Amino acid sequence: MKLLGSPTSPYVRKCRVTLAELGLADSVAFVVAPPTSDELIAVNPVMKVPALVLDNGDSLFDSRMIMRYLNEKAGGKLYPAGDWAMVRRESTAEGMIDASLLLRMETFARPEQFRWDGWIETQSKKINSVLDAMEAEVGTLGNVTGAAIGMACGLGYLDFRFADWGWRNGRPGLAKWFEGFSARASMQGSKHE
Amino acid sequence: MKLLGSPTSPYVRKCRVTLAELGLADSVAFVVAPPTSDELIAVNPVMKVPALVLDNGDSLFDSRMIMRYLNEKAGGKLYPAGDWAMVRRESTAEGMIDASLLLRMETFARPEQFRWDGWIETQSKKINSVLDAMEAEVGTLGNVTGAAIGMACGLGYLDFRFADWGWRNGRPGLAKWFEGFSARASMQGSKHE
Repeated sequence: MKLLGSPTSPYVRKCRVTLAELGLADSVAFVVAPPTSDELIAVNPVMKVPALVLDNGDSLFDSRMIMRYLNEKAGGKLYPAGDWAMVRRESTAEGMIDASLLLRMETFARPEQFRWDGWIETQSKKINSVLDAMEAEVGTLGNVTGAAIGMACGLGYLDFRFADWGWRNGRPGLAKWFEGFSARASMQGSKHE
Repeated sequence: MKLLGSPTSPYVRKCRVTLAELGLADSVAFVVAPPTSDELIAVNPVMKVPALVLDNGDSLFDSRMIMRYLNEKAGGKLYPAGDWAMVRRESTAEGMIDASLLLRMETFARPEQFRWDGWIETQSKKINSVLDAMEAEVGTLGNVTGAAIGMACGLGYLDFRFADWGWRNGRPGLAKWFEGFSARASMQGSKHE
């Protein structure tokens, strides 16, 4: 198997952290391939990273589906059966990442004259809304799950692209949790670059 | 349980079709609640529809997670164990819906002076890329699965918001499949309005 993606993508990082946590890092090659590359598009018509290419030539995406597949193959514990509250938290983290990427597109990729404050406000509001919600239930993020990996990579992306956001302000629980989770080898080995 | 959302959302329609296909339509109330409503935001910090509110007060989102939950609760067959190719097709359809929504935001919600042709082209390319990929494997969409529901609602949304797209041109297999799937009571009972 091989994982296609860019080291700057939080979705890709989620999968790299998952591989490391499941002990699969040595059996799945990480291939740097941006969303616009022919290699990526050939296996993902949605033209997004990451994509996982299986040994039979089939592919999987997006990150939440790749993570479920890898967890099943490894007999992992990232998605305990019936723990739907964890799934809700994973979706919550995913919503923050989605908003962060749209904000990045708006404030970086889009030509300046076409940027719209209304869109920036909407995405920023979503990010802060998720941060507040997760601060309120940070105690549930204890185990290494799909939700914890999602939230950690989401926060790591904020530090990477929005260093001035100050997301730690007023959210001491989340800040402390992230500090601990970030020390894991899986996170250290997948830093954005 | 109750499902919160707007009748114009393809993600909401996916869940409504799922409820009908699983025979749960009578046991889950559909509550019209736009993404900006207090009722929705209270159960989904990501501020997106749909959200499913469980009997214990907890919530679930987004549509793919709601569909998995409902399928598990009903003992349904929308997600056969180990059928990862179906999951890939579901993700493919989801990518088309995501791009369609971003295109709708760009060409309708965003003030005209801030619209960017580059973004419109990128999202349009994704939509056509998915349509072509699904045309090539339309024969695999036979059963009622998460992938089939996703693709049907994605195509229904194109007809709803982008009636001039002409997605059927050059894609006779997909057009025929959609015609058949659209005749299902679940689709007829959840038309966009």
